[in-house]
Amino acid sequence: MKAEILCVGTELLLGDIVNTNAQFLAKELADLGIFVYYQSVVGDNSDKLKKSLEIAFSRADLVITTGGLGPTKDDLTKEVAANYFNKELILDEKSLNKIKEYFECQKRKMVEGNKKQAYFPKGSIILPNDWGTAPGCIIEENKKTLILLPGPPREMTNMFKYYVIPYLNKYQDGVLISKVLRICGIGESHMEDIISDIIKNQINPTIAPYAKQGEVTLRITARANSKEEAENIIAPIKNEIYSRLSEYIYGEGDTSLEEEVAKLLINKKLTIATAESCTGGLIASKLINYPGVSSVFMEGMVTYSNESKMKRLNVKKETLQKYGAVSEETAIEMAMGIAKEVGTNIGLSVTGIAGPGGASEEKPVGLVFIGLYINGKIKTKKLNLKGSRDRIRNITAIRALDFLRKEILENTIH
Amino acid sequence: MKAEILCVGTELLLGDIVNTNAQFLAKELADLGIFVYYQSVVGDNSDKLKKSLEIAFSRADLVITTGGLGPTKDDLTKEVAANYFNKELILDEKSLNKIKEYFECQKRKMVEGNKKQAYFPKGSIILPNDWGTAPGCIIEENKKTLILLPGPPREMTNMFKYYVIPYLNKYQDGVLISKVLRICGIGESHMEDIISDIIKNQINPTIAPYAKQGEVTLRITARANSKEEAENIIAPIKNEIYSRLSEYIYGEGDTSLEEEVAKLLINKKLTIATAESCTGGLIASKLINYPGVSSVFMEGMVTYSNESKMKRLNVKKETLQKYGAVSEETAIEMAMGIAKEVGTNIGLSVTGIAGPGGASEEKPVGLVFIGLYINGKIKTKKLNLKGSRDRIRNITAIRALDFLRKEILENTIH
Repeated sequence: MKAEILCVGTELLLGDIVNTNAQFLAKELADLGIFVYYQSVVGDNSDKLKKSLEIAFSRADLVITTGGLGPTKDDLTKEVAANYFNKELILDEKSLNKIKEYFECQKRKMVEGNKKQAYFPKGSIILPNDWGTAPGCIIEENKKTLILLPGPPREMTNMFKYYVIPYLNKYQDGVLISKVLRICGIGESHMEDIISDIIKNQINPTIAPYAKQGEVTLRITARANSKEEAENIIAPIKNEIYSRLSEYIYGEGDTSLEEEVAKLLINKKLTIATAESCTGGLIASKLINYPGVSSVFMEGMVTYSNESKMKRLNVKKETLQKYGAVSEETAIEMAMGIAKEVGTNIGLSVTGIAGPGGASEEKPVGLVFIGLYINGKIKTKKLNLKGSRDRIRNITAIRALDFLRKEILENTIH
Repeated sequence: MKAEILCVGTELLLGDIVNTNAQFLAKELADLGIFVYYQSVVGDNSDKLKKSLEIAFSRADLVITTGGLGPTKDDLTKEVAANYFNKELILDEKSLNKIKEYFECQKRKMVEGNKKQAYFPKGSIILPNDWGTAPGCIIEENKKTLILLPGPPREMTNMFKYYVIPYLNKYQDGVLISKVLRICGIGESHMEDIISDIIKNQINPTIAPYAKQGEVTLRITARANSKEEAENIIAPIKNEIYSRLSEYIYGEGDTSLEEEVAKLLINKKLTIATAESCTGGLIASKLINYPGVSSVFMEGMVTYSNESKMKRLNVKKETLQKYGAVSEETAIEMAMGIAKEVGTNIGLSVTGIAGPGGASEEKPVGLVFIGLYINGKIKTKKLNLKGSRDRIRNITAIRALDFLRKEILENTIH
């Protein structure tokens, strides 16, 4: 079965928001083994939306839309869908009551436009919205299936998980199984070069590399009649990739670098404290996104000023004067200082120039030092990064966590 | 002139990455006054890409693609474009030399596939890539213009700014001017209700509200022959919206809540220190993303454990025992404690239950207390949030900064 994703909203056409809905649906459909060959975006315009539906149904059996189910006059996806399938819109009392209850529960006032949200093309399967006011629906007609979902991501993703997946399961024949390898510390093209002979001429599984800020991902996808068969197709390729890139692979599947680092700290019972300058709390904040990290993450300090580096971390005044705040020496004293002050196994520090100001000829924007203290040992890393302030700070946080990950693996196993 | 955005990449179809390129281009084209009615995504597949080009050019005069200019065999956008326009691919020596230099400068090895990146459809205008290895190009034929840009966002956005905008300026007739109002602390539908009579029946300017995590944005867009004329159309509507929503509007245009708060602190010479529990450094990290904040942001502490709350912030043991770590009382002591310890005008604290664990019947996931100390006064705010750990932490950080913003405006002006 072929599917298409059609996202409706002038805010998408104007670039006011990023289309995370398309990504979510694409990933979910891929996991269900339903092929998506096209995604489209169209504005809140009846004619253009109808034409988009025509094009989509000329290429696919299933079309999933997001957006245009809200209470305002701009919201017209249901109206256009009803027109496309030549059906009238009928009031669903159950949905209307649910919308009324929603507003009562939220202690908010229901507006006139919300009533419109309880009307659906005749014969639709109604998809309740337990997370907002806009119910969705499924219209089946002449082997065409149209699923209408609301635009707000939290509502859309929950409705998809709870109501659309059970519905779509009946369409699955064959499976598409993917394994995602998560990689850090190597560039995309360098990585591709190392495994180019593996990627070359691969049809099943396919191997797709892609880069995002500070990381590279490799998706190995196999098509087969069963999950087991697909996994057997993937296994030998995955093993070969591991044998060449293992030092860079930090995890598989739905994980993140911070999650892997947090798990490693918890498993090895290593306590940690962070001392951040240019990243300003980003490393602590990433680690704390992993629930349960509280058993190992003791404390974080954002020591942005020289005073706070001296007062909180015991960085020596002479070190700051002689080498500067952005130096290997300062990074070392910060890491040792925070570990000693808090009494942890690990002290992780970062000091750098995120720009746009603060640079000199010797110390350009993007110069960063990471200091790492682990049970008496000190390691440092120097980075020369490029890009915006935001990018430099983000990549620094990622590289610091990856540095920590590798050092834990190398230093504490034996 | 009508334009379309066509993003090429199987990683987009599979949902591996979010399509930020489409958003960037949409926003830039809107600012240039070039209308975009459709965006599409297609995979790395010759036939489907060619069909997508045909559909796009049946609706638009200008098509901009992203992706498929890389060194691998998957990258075939130039090949398909050459085929679509019936042109051969020609080696551009200048581009080849530039790619060679790029690799030398980066001390990386050039691979065979990179040579392919120096071939272009005959007669193309070549767009240099000063940020990576994939040059782009512009093909003009029979009143159709096709602009090919690479997929990596940093390369694509820079090439667009430096080479495509000057090229596109010649196509501008009339302007489309937008003013974006940034709003926090009110829900989208409540906001729409307050200004529904203004939004109703508006054609020029159009008023488009949309919600993102923790914020709402209102875009007022006018079409006119000149910038001045467009601004005169927008002004009265904008003033009317301000008169009704001013307490919620934190800024206009390309700004962010943290930027506005940082500027406010700097202008009013108010120093600040933060003490964060569940947000774990997110508030500090947001503030520090504004360059120049160092004159007012003194220090941040991530006091995740009870011990650190007592040791660093002088939160009383009895307070933690009697009211718990997540309580108004603890938030107050944290805010006062950090301000006193660091010696700042302002102490901002957060303590809450981000979940999924740690909740009780009395204290559910999403319960958060914000404490704010400003020059001797104490204010607090209680939040009851819903959603994932990530969402609760993010919204808490946003609401804390907005709370700070309003209190500064209310407390220190007079």
